[in-house]
Amino acid sequence: MTAQLILLVIGFSVFGLLFAAYLARWVLRFSTGSAAMQKISNAIKEGAEAFLRRQNRTILGLALAFAVVLFVGYGVIREHRAFDPVGSSFQLAFWITLSFVLGALCSVFAGYVGMWVSIRSNIRTATAVLSSLNDALRIALRGGAVSGLLVVAMSLLGVTGLYALVDAFGNVEPTKIPLLIVGYGFGASFVALFAQLGGGIYTKAADVGADLVGKVEAGIPEDDPRNPAVIADLVGDNVGDCAGRGADLFESTAAENIGAMILGASLAAAAEKANFGFSAGIIGVMMFPLVARAFGIVASIIGIMMVKMDKEEKIDPMQALNRGYYYAVVLAMVAFGGATYWLLNTPKAPDAWWHFFLCGIVGVLTSVAFVYITQYYTEYKYRPVQSIAEASKTGPATNIIAGVGVGLECTWMPTLVMGAALLSSYFLGQSAFPASSGMHGGLFGTAVATMGMLATAAYILAMDTFGPITDNAGGIVEMSEQPEEVRKKTDRLDAVGNTTKALTKGYAVGSAALAAFLLFQAYMDEVAQYAGQEMHGVNLANPVVFVGALIGAALVFLFSSMAIRAVGSAAQAIIEEVRRQYAKLPRLNDIIQFPADFKPDYATCVDIVTKSALRKMVAPGLLVVLTPIGVGLTFKMFITPENKLISAEAVAGLLMVGTIAGILMALFLNNGGGAWDNAKKYIESGAHGGKYLIGPDGTKTKNPTHAAAVVGDTVGDPFKDTAGPSLHVLIKLLSTITLVLAPLFI
Amino acid sequence: MTAQLILLVIGFSVFGLLFAAYLARWVLRFSTGSAAMQKISNAIKEGAEAFLRRQNRTILGLALAFAVVLFVGYGVIREHRAFDPVGSSFQLAFWITLSFVLGALCSVFAGYVGMWVSIRSNIRTATAVLSSLNDALRIALRGGAVSGLLVVAMSLLGVTGLYALVDAFGNVEPTKIPLLIVGYGFGASFVALFAQLGGGIYTKAADVGADLVGKVEAGIPEDDPRNPAVIADLVGDNVGDCAGRGADLFESTAAENIGAMILGASLAAAAEKANFGFSAGIIGVMMFPLVARAFGIVASIIGIMMVKMDKEEKIDPMQALNRGYYYAVVLAMVAFGGATYWLLNTPKAPDAWWHFFLCGIVGVLTSVAFVYITQYYTEYKYRPVQSIAEASKTGPATNIIAGVGVGLECTWMPTLVMGAALLSSYFLGQSAFPASSGMHGGLFGTAVATMGMLATAAYILAMDTFGPITDNAGGIVEMSEQPEEVRKKTDRLDAVGNTTKALTKGYAVGSAALAAFLLFQAYMDEVAQYAGQEMHGVNLANPVVFVGALIGAALVFLFSSMAIRAVGSAAQAIIEEVRRQYAKLPRLNDIIQFPADFKPDYATCVDIVTKSALRKMVAPGLLVVLTPIGVGLTFKMFITPENKLISAEAVAGLLMVGTIAGILMALFLNNGGGAWDNAKKYIESGAHGGKYLIGPDGTKTKNPTHAAAVVGDTVGDPFKDTAGPSLHVLIKLLSTITLVLAPLFI
Repeated sequence: MTAQLILLVIGFSVFGLLFAAYLARWVLRFSTGSAAMQKISNAIKEGAEAFLRRQNRTILGLALAFAVVLFVGYGVIREHRAFDPVGSSFQLAFWITLSFVLGALCSVFAGYVGMWVSIRSNIRTATAVLSSLNDALRIALRGGAVSGLLVVAMSLLGVTGLYALVDAFGNVEPTKIPLLIVGYGFGASFVALFAQLGGGIYTKAADVGADLVGKVEAGIPEDDPRNPAVIADLVGDNVGDCAGRGADLFESTAAENIGAMILGASLAAAAEKANFGFSAGIIGVMMFPLVARAFGIVASIIGIMMVKMDKEEKIDPMQALNRGYYYAVVLAMVAFGGATYWLLNTPKAPDAWWHFFLCGIVGVLTSVAFVYITQYYTEYKYRPVQSIAEASKTGPATNIIAGVGVGLECTWMPTLVMGAALLSSYFLGQSAFPASSGMHGGLFGTAVATMGMLATAAYILAMDTFGPITDNAGGIVEMSEQPEEVRKKTDRLDAVGNTTKALTKGYAVGSAALAAFLLFQAYMDEVAQYAGQEMHGVNLANPVVFVGALIGAALVFLFSSMAIRAVGSAAQAIIEEVRRQYAKLPRLNDIIQFPADFKPDYATCVDIVTKSALRKMVAPGLLVVLTPIGVGLTFKMFITPENKLISAEAVAGLLMVGTIAGILMALFLNNGGGAWDNAKKYIESGAHGGKYLIGPDGTKTKNPTHAAAVVGDTVGDPFKDTAGPSLHVLIKLLSTITLVLAPLFI
Repeated sequence: MTAQLILLVIGFSVFGLLFAAYLARWVLRFSTGSAAMQKISNAIKEGAEAFLRRQNRTILGLALAFAVVLFVGYGVIREHRAFDPVGSSFQLAFWITLSFVLGALCSVFAGYVGMWVSIRSNIRTATAVLSSLNDALRIALRGGAVSGLLVVAMSLLGVTGLYALVDAFGNVEPTKIPLLIVGYGFGASFVALFAQLGGGIYTKAADVGADLVGKVEAGIPEDDPRNPAVIADLVGDNVGDCAGRGADLFESTAAENIGAMILGASLAAAAEKANFGFSAGIIGVMMFPLVARAFGIVASIIGIMMVKMDKEEKIDPMQALNRGYYYAVVLAMVAFGGATYWLLNTPKAPDAWWHFFLCGIVGVLTSVAFVYITQYYTEYKYRPVQSIAEASKTGPATNIIAGVGVGLECTWMPTLVMGAALLSSYFLGQSAFPASSGMHGGLFGTAVATMGMLATAAYILAMDTFGPITDNAGGIVEMSEQPEEVRKKTDRLDAVGNTTKALTKGYAVGSAALAAFLLFQAYMDEVAQYAGQEMHGVNLANPVVFVGALIGAALVFLFSSMAIRAVGSAAQAIIEEVRRQYAKLPRLNDIIQFPADFKPDYATCVDIVTKSALRKMVAPGLLVVLTPIGVGLTFKMFITPENKLISAEAVAGLLMVGTIAGILMALFLNNGGGAWDNAKKYIESGAHGGKYLIGPDGTKTKNPTHAAAVVGDTVGDPFKDTAGPSLHVLIKLLSTITLVLAPLFI
């Protein structure tokens, strides 16, 4: 049965990859439009590819160094122990390092190809808008879907392939294989952290720089070709939102699959002992997460293919996207139910499978709840954003105070949702078996909920990449000075793209939150397996564990600070460059009067940001990698004969409280930033006087309320697009790094 | 021996109170200066007293309602249990409610009297400056010391008096008395939370309002009499900084004394059983915290009396204050050593007493480290503040980004210091007894460290209240238009006051952090006593506890949001009022030209803030009180026969992780706000062009760099003076409320 299950998953993954190739070809056969548009698109393409090449070189260098450390640590420094899953230190080091390197390489590859398609979809979307909004919508979504399918299918293929590899050559008990391939998830997180950081710093330094001098000082619109920072800004959309988020979700799906496999194997083994064996055997339960995800790929593909506009192109494109999403969700849930019935069936506990199915439903509902909460806090229909716009009337300071208030406030609803999801899936899993059986299905219940949430990951990721593609299409249309009605169409798509980007951020935090519990249970399980003794819990009342927890929370604060300050300093460099270019232009009423022959120097801006972003991503990235290792190794000095696991327990404290702090901080930064952004857009849509005030004599002056809102928007940029999304990765990296290094802390 | 110890502590406390009365008389015999100065001082006095009266009425109403709930909860709803420290539900309800009411009343009284003296010291300080800086310094410090001594002595008297009362009439085993009087600490925290919130909202709404319209829009200096919000601002200094912080430290000392007593009693009882009995008996160990604090009062008094300027008045007043502080610290430590030798001596473990003495030294060093770290992050000599000033050159957005970066960054050093202090005092206490004895002195070690830190609380509090007194004195001198050289002298004092205020905030967080661990150990001890079974830890890996922890952290975020937004909305009301008053004034170059006969309407501003602050303090205050109760009662549904303490454990998770999040958030808000404040002052001192740019033709225009820095300063106001300090109280209120209500969660 193992072989069939593996083949099934590999088959579905390969199908996903082939379909991605098909979509890429489909997108590429559309026209690339006029020479003016191509010129801009090529500038974006060059900037993005140059950045990604340099970034990947840096990241792979760091990963290589870390792979050596990993290999030496496991193969040479650490002694072989009786409970190790393989027979020698060398074997352990070999498999863990191999998984790490493969995870890193696959993540880099998925990010690169995704972006390759996305920077070719933007111009095609822009061109298609001229004739058909339906085509434009589909190009943008399918271009995004290439990235989405690639990420999900490759992560599945990697995990399954590695599993098959170890199974064939490793001579390892099958249930212990996940312990060896956790490195894949760690390699992916490692790359994701730097990719998200580097891309996030790049995109926001460029955006903040462009906004500040462009909109505020020079009074020119977004994406205006006269702004020297505008190409860097458009490049940033690709390298940050697209490549960064792709790497983020790549590692999520990889790490969470492996974590769920570890918990499934434990549960199934315990069930066998308690005479509650599953019909599909231990392997069946362990492979359940992979099978469920494989079905999810197909559901997402069908959903993506269903998206189209109505004939008159009257409906909101968001509605079309939502319809596709609902198809994907319903199909994924049907398939999920089938998978639970097939693989999680145990004759002695006939209710078990549908209990687990309900856990999956809980996961889906959680993602929906997160999406709604995100909308409430970031859309200008609702009170929070309106209160920020209102506060802008008294200047930038009150705008900032209001925005910080909204950001801090928005954490409480997701907290309650997470709490409810965690407890309900736990108790559903717990009650899957009769109380008298002594079986504990609770943790696996939370794992199944996470799998349910991730079932439609490919669709979500397609919607997310839709964002930068339409954003770029809008930029190309704007910069190539197309007629007003074309711009209106791209604006429609762009607005939808902003919404989908915000929603997927909510989805990413939600999945990080739900997955966190699963991942640290997997960590405890792993510690128990390596140590040969149960880990009885994570006792915060022990001062050593408490200090570990404190450090975990402080790590989140320090990391956020470094990410935010990196943007601040890179942006300052750009601002000074643009000011230098603008210094000699004539002004009227404090508004720059551009000469017709003004030629901005785009290349210098692109170069400045590339250099800064790469320089600034290293320190925060290494901080996250080194802190848990440092604590785990230092706190070994507290090990006593009575408490051999104290260091591993302190690291668990760091991981758990770091995760709690990280989730809340990410919500604060993402939603605070999103709310500021839309408060500005609300004013631009005409509220509180709009963008310009027209005096009685017809003179146009800047509306100070709008200027105040732009300050908030600018502050929110590094919050929502650099630090916030990097925190999602940080949370998961903490989990995967502790999973990989757990044996070193014992 | 009990009686003698009680008498000793009461004697020292009464001495402290009498000395406070002596200092008050000493201050009051100084001259109250000219009629112009008196007019301003009286306006401040009236505003402050009116606010405090109304605030106290609201707070006492809330406290009364809560006392009824407490009485009914314990006396009627909860059933009597075998392990209760008294014989009936009624008795339990009686003592707990009585302690609560007394704690609340004493806190209100201490706050009121402290402020009564401080608003009379300001005018005398201002008058004394005209003739002698030495007198001014001493008036301000001794005026502040009235508040400091009152707070510390009353909290000690209250705890000891209640102890004596229960001992005499309660028929309770002495070691269980602290369980009955924990209500005193809770009553004090209850009042402190609302006092700090209400005062904090008041002071910053007035300050933000005054700053925004005064400095930025009208371009007039701070404390300019033409600003209608200026009296409200000066009133705010008293009700926020002075009354608020007094209530904060009142409850700290009360709650931490009781917590340390609970741990001391447990340790001594265990020692007796293990045949390691202390010479001073169980009661001696339990009373140790009170005796150590009593000695600390005398040390602080001597320190305060040592402060004076040199004859030529050349030295920095800060130096004079520091000298007094060093005296107080050294004396307190000598007395502390004596107290450990006297009361913590056990013949069988001769090293125990000096191990505990070293714990006390660790506590003192921790407070010193916190003070230095605070200085590094908030003074403009150092990199963090300078980086904010530098970022102001590119506008308010980069100023805010830089400030948030500094605030988030500043958490890591205190985290390491706290971690080191906690672990070293724990292991010092642990090794106080031979390993073979089976005694666990570690927790008591952390308690003793806290006592060491708090030994000089009276001196610290005197320095803290020195801040608003000199601030007000400066305001009075400015508004009564005294000559430049007098202003320079008050500016010198005011600058020192700003420093002492920042330092005491660092001290308050440090003590909250160190005390937190002691308080939640006391909670666990209490749960064990009431439940008659050991609480084995706080296991974060249990999903119910994890969700409790998540809620604790989210509570900190939501509370901070409410506090910050309260200031934002109250400030907006003031800004609109001042704009209304300024609307018709003539302007030149965007700078208001005030007519000579301009009469601002102070009273309306004072009234607007008073109403807003009182209205806005209720919701966040109740949130903090009701969340742990709600979780504790709701989570009783997860109680199973195997795990009877799960709800109590979830509340412990909430408490601990809430504390971690609260400490970090308070550091972020306090130091971020302080750094913004001083970045602005740095620019005003001439950096980056100073306040005004002088054109080639001699015209004065506002320096945009300074304007950007003012935005940051304004944003920082509610951070550092409303939300941050309120979080100190929140942390301790969580501890005391759980201590008081623990029996209801079992």
